[in-house]
Amino acid sequence: MTDLAPLLSPRSVAVIGASPDQGILRGRIMRVLCRHGFSGSIWPVSRSHDTIMGHAAYPTIGDVPEPVELAVLIIPAAHVPAALRDCAGAGVKAALILASGFAEEPAGPGQDLQAEIRSIAAETGMAVAGPNSEGLANLGTGLCATFSPALDSDPGCLIPEVGLPGRIAVIAQSGGMGFAFFDRGRRKGLRFSHIVTTGNEACIESLDVVEHLLDRDEADVFLLFMEDVKTPAMFARVTDKALLLGKPLIVAKIGRSDAAARAAASHTASLAGSHEIYQAMFRRYGVVEGRDTEEVVDIAAAFASFGSRPPAGRRVGIFTGSGGGGGWLADACADAGLDVPLLDPETRATIDVHLPPYGTSQNPVDGTAGVIRQLGYARITRMMAASPAIDAILLVTSAVNPHSLQAEADALSSLAATTAKPVMFWSYTLPHPDATETLVRAGLPLFTNMRNAAAALSALERYGRQRRRRLDAPAADIAVLPASVVRRLSGPARTLPEVEALSVLDLSGFTVPTGGLAASAEEAVEYAAALDGPVALKIQSPDIPHKSAAGGVALGLASPEDVRRNFRLILERVAHTHPRADIRGVLVQSMAQSGLEMIIGIENRSGFGPMVLAGFGGTGVEAERDAVLVPAPLDRDEAGDALRRLRGAVRIDPDRHDIPALCELIRQLSCFASAAAPYVAEIDLNPVLVHAPGSGVSIADALIVTHAQQ
Amino acid sequence: MTDLAPLLSPRSVAVIGASPDQGILRGRIMRVLCRHGFSGSIWPVSRSHDTIMGHAAYPTIGDVPEPVELAVLIIPAAHVPAALRDCAGAGVKAALILASGFAEEPAGPGQDLQAEIRSIAAETGMAVAGPNSEGLANLGTGLCATFSPALDSDPGCLIPEVGLPGRIAVIAQSGGMGFAFFDRGRRKGLRFSHIVTTGNEACIESLDVVEHLLDRDEADVFLLFMEDVKTPAMFARVTDKALLLGKPLIVAKIGRSDAAARAAASHTASLAGSHEIYQAMFRRYGVVEGRDTEEVVDIAAAFASFGSRPPAGRRVGIFTGSGGGGGWLADACADAGLDVPLLDPETRATIDVHLPPYGTSQNPVDGTAGVIRQLGYARITRMMAASPAIDAILLVTSAVNPHSLQAEADALSSLAATTAKPVMFWSYTLPHPDATETLVRAGLPLFTNMRNAAAALSALERYGRQRRRRLDAPAADIAVLPASVVRRLSGPARTLPEVEALSVLDLSGFTVPTGGLAASAEEAVEYAAALDGPVALKIQSPDIPHKSAAGGVALGLASPEDVRRNFRLILERVAHTHPRADIRGVLVQSMAQSGLEMIIGIENRSGFGPMVLAGFGGTGVEAERDAVLVPAPLDRDEAGDALRRLRGAVRIDPDRHDIPALCELIRQLSCFASAAAPYVAEIDLNPVLVHAPGSGVSIADALIVTHAQQ
Repeated sequence: MTDLAPLLSPRSVAVIGASPDQGILRGRIMRVLCRHGFSGSIWPVSRSHDTIMGHAAYPTIGDVPEPVELAVLIIPAAHVPAALRDCAGAGVKAALILASGFAEEPAGPGQDLQAEIRSIAAETGMAVAGPNSEGLANLGTGLCATFSPALDSDPGCLIPEVGLPGRIAVIAQSGGMGFAFFDRGRRKGLRFSHIVTTGNEACIESLDVVEHLLDRDEADVFLLFMEDVKTPAMFARVTDKALLLGKPLIVAKIGRSDAAARAAASHTASLAGSHEIYQAMFRRYGVVEGRDTEEVVDIAAAFASFGSRPPAGRRVGIFTGSGGGGGWLADACADAGLDVPLLDPETRATIDVHLPPYGTSQNPVDGTAGVIRQLGYARITRMMAASPAIDAILLVTSAVNPHSLQAEADALSSLAATTAKPVMFWSYTLPHPDATETLVRAGLPLFTNMRNAAAALSALERYGRQRRRRLDAPAADIAVLPASVVRRLSGPARTLPEVEALSVLDLSGFTVPTGGLAASAEEAVEYAAALDGPVALKIQSPDIPHKSAAGGVALGLASPEDVRRNFRLILERVAHTHPRADIRGVLVQSMAQSGLEMIIGIENRSGFGPMVLAGFGGTGVEAERDAVLVPAPLDRDEAGDALRRLRGAVRIDPDRHDIPALCELIRQLSCFASAAAPYVAEIDLNPVLVHAPGSGVSIADALIVTHAQQ
Repeated sequence: MTDLAPLLSPRSVAVIGASPDQGILRGRIMRVLCRHGFSGSIWPVSRSHDTIMGHAAYPTIGDVPEPVELAVLIIPAAHVPAALRDCAGAGVKAALILASGFAEEPAGPGQDLQAEIRSIAAETGMAVAGPNSEGLANLGTGLCATFSPALDSDPGCLIPEVGLPGRIAVIAQSGGMGFAFFDRGRRKGLRFSHIVTTGNEACIESLDVVEHLLDRDEADVFLLFMEDVKTPAMFARVTDKALLLGKPLIVAKIGRSDAAARAAASHTASLAGSHEIYQAMFRRYGVVEGRDTEEVVDIAAAFASFGSRPPAGRRVGIFTGSGGGGGWLADACADAGLDVPLLDPETRATIDVHLPPYGTSQNPVDGTAGVIRQLGYARITRMMAASPAIDAILLVTSAVNPHSLQAEADALSSLAATTAKPVMFWSYTLPHPDATETLVRAGLPLFTNMRNAAAALSALERYGRQRRRRLDAPAADIAVLPASVVRRLSGPARTLPEVEALSVLDLSGFTVPTGGLAASAEEAVEYAAALDGPVALKIQSPDIPHKSAAGGVALGLASPEDVRRNFRLILERVAHTHPRADIRGVLVQSMAQSGLEMIIGIENRSGFGPMVLAGFGGTGVEAERDAVLVPAPLDRDEAGDALRRLRGAVRIDPDRHDIPALCELIRQLSCFASAAAPYVAEIDLNPVLVHAPGSGVSIADALIVTHAQQ
């Protein structure tokens, strides 16, 4: 892999296209680069000036008298390829292309120029970021190679003196959003390590940057603004590494709506994938989704403080001096999937001693201003944290007045350092800067947005749960495909009709309905005779995916005469509806028992790896598209969790349905799909019938679509 | 009704319990009261001081030498009743009780004290607010009768010099939340007229205050923080009046979660009703729900600017200089129920002239910084607003730099004054105060929270739609109950079994299944003979609500012998399962055709008036509780809208189901329930079978529960 150190931590940087004119971007980048105390050397490259802002300028990169690690290119798109080659020739290791006019332009030469950049990077081994980037900043070294207004002011506070513990890296396809995260976050005491805006991601993409910073332990929390993932196959590797290391990723992923997908496609030339697949991947790898700038920053504050100590469960204790505020926050917690349970009697007894008659210890604990003054938040929190009924504490405060918080600053620091349960503040008034500083110094996040406080705590809990699950996970149980199965799945892309799909599943260890493929009515009668009870007949043809609609199915046939007559009827009807179909025969099967109709499938076209789809089948219900998506492989517990996420989950009733058998089928299919990923694009088991407890499930129809194989 | 003018706009105010000690609340309220230029007279009442903060103090209210309109009571709860009587004796017209220790205390004398306050108010006719209030402020007169820290600073900016057009009144049960709305809002240029915190609402409740301000035209937008509605019957009257007048109500209603309901019950002694009923009432009367302080304030800013010009539809045009920001906002719009459609070709052509090759006019319109500099937001907005494809415009900006906005200040003001389509800004950077001021002066809301911008526009659209519907509504079509129906519904509270309920519905003009109540097997055979096709038998007893489970139902009986045998079987089984039941006979009915099973019902116990419930019936599906609630009466269009809000709405298929007949049944039931509201507590039509188009619906079972009648 290309080394990103020269890009992200260079010791020397050249600006190709630098200008002394501060009214234009080529001048503003020089001003920003010079003002933050970068410890390395800065080399403007300009044909028209000898010095720029006190730095000697040279007409070409080759003229620069010392080795340059990073070249920043802020020149017209058409000149970029030549400049890149010059850089490579001069020994430059990395390039950051701020110029636009590449693949984000629907017409014109931009697409070709971007392809050329990619080839030059591949040939030369240079680490190339952009084009169409707004630049990057390594705040530890003071390198600010950007013209963003967010870094063109306040030189003193790149990293706040008083800040929350975790180091935060921003990696954003959009420069505006990336620097907005930084600008809002630093005002809340977040310590940023890097801001990298990746633009069109012609070569280096966001996850490359994440992986580099993970491998070198240069950041603790990652904020990503993502329009797409250019190399989906990289996603699982990098996010899994982050999850194992306990370094959370907080992602703003745009493209949920058609309009956003249009916007993304136009302006960074990306092809947004299905948001459902992204969300399934996010859930699996503990990636937290943020929905606006404030929420992203607030979630980051929670992770910067308690990312290494997430709550053990979703039960929250709320302490409040404002009854109305406590109740409203309880609603917000419920909306965010948290519980606000009654406290246990022992804890309540401890608290009640201190409450006036109109206070209450039930939860929310309504403590009145007097109790806060008398005990202080730290002592109240310790009393509450002792309760076995809760996993985290939210404190409602009015931080417009900083005095009470300042008075117990040491107690709050000690609380933050030692608490096993996360503690966070929500202020319903706009906080005094001294109140903010007191809490940040203690290492406790202060929220001004109530719903964000609840969302951040909920994100922390889900992250912790997903991380524990990952750390406890046994080695994945991926099937080894028998050679006979590989043979049947290899070759050109095609659709395997039911009889072939069932045969593949049968050879792979699945329980499939017994039966046989009859070429004649008499053969059908023979197969039927060998089966117990009434039978079903189903036409088999790769050209007839919808067998019933084509008149190709007959059910519940009990006598040889019925079988014979219906065999002929089916062929007649199909000859009429599909005169040119390639007919492989008629499948004779035992009738399945009735059961709850589910659809269990595999989708493996996104590049992220096979996804299991589970949902409800049957007329009318299928149209509701009540289905969930989970990356394969998964175990039975995860299958159960997935089923519980269905909107109509209550329909799957343990008293009436064999849920363990359904979960086992989902697990088995997910393992098969993981092993068969190179061959299989799609599997549909539709319907799967879920029978009474102990009676298992039946695959009532099956279809496999394969990828082309060379 | 009690006149609230002496409470809300008094010319003189006495503070009973006033103190010069600024370290306690009794002193702080004097400081706040004296600092905001109240034009009336201020009379401290204190036994221990002669003057307080320059105002002559008197030992009792009776000693005050001039008439006092409002008395503020900040004394221990136990002394409040006597003080109230003294006030009444001294001719005081209104009292504001800040003392706590009343019904919010679960134990102790608080409940009785609160009841005593209520009687004194009733006897004397005084307007009494509180107890447990944090006070009130009339910002127009400078009356600030509160100890809230929000009014204990910045005396100069009660009403900002530069503010958005609408006057905003806050009415809050919680003082902390009420003043938080004010404190956040004034920083965003909202002009507040009143802040009234109503505490326990022993006498005067929030909606009384709303009605008073509506009647006197003293506010344009209302922000309510509500834990409950003490007099539900008042809700429809006041909110309907506000809707007709075009004065929006924005409500934070707590109590969605169990914990919040607990919190509300404890601290203001309220009994939170079902949130679903509140939401149904909110929807009907165009009341906007806000979910946190920022959202409430941001929605208020949108209404203060465009409340009188809501968008005609939900289609939004987005202009952005940041491609990433535009796409993210498009996602937020979609989440808020708005559409971001492609612009029409004519509008695109007009815009394209000004865009560089890497811009796009599709929507979001990605215009780059250069276009903004060159054209300005006002001109861009006019170009977009000309499009017939959109109803409102959201502009993405980076307001950290105020210059470009300041440069076109006049153009923006003229745009705001003349646009028929709402125009709002979202800044992804934190705005410079001068940028905020420029936009506020123009009358254009500036959001820093992207999701709130989308939520506010969506709220404006829903409000406008609901208001248009209300203004266009024909006189409500409420049925007149026949005397025979009134007779059957009168008397003690009881459950009417199917045969009686069907008779009531039949007499009220509903189509009900034909059949008869048989006392003997032979009578059943006779009824069956008179009906076409097979019949159903159903036991009829007020003691057997679940007939099938009791073995009391037999279906599809085609022969006299079947009817005879099953009649006896039913009686035997029921004698076994319900030996003591009062058996009224066995209902013989034609078998209904099959159809989609729905539940249509009426719930009339909340005090808000009868609510129609519509949802899915049938095994398995019923457990999902997919149902909607709408206040009665409603028309067929509203019934259709309600059905479309069901999660499983897609199951109701116009090609397979007679939707007009279902809507008509819902309308008819809602009108019946409105007329029968004094008698009927509950109606369940379960199931209603919805047949094929043109074939109508069947009421397959019915039950009516009545209220007690004196």
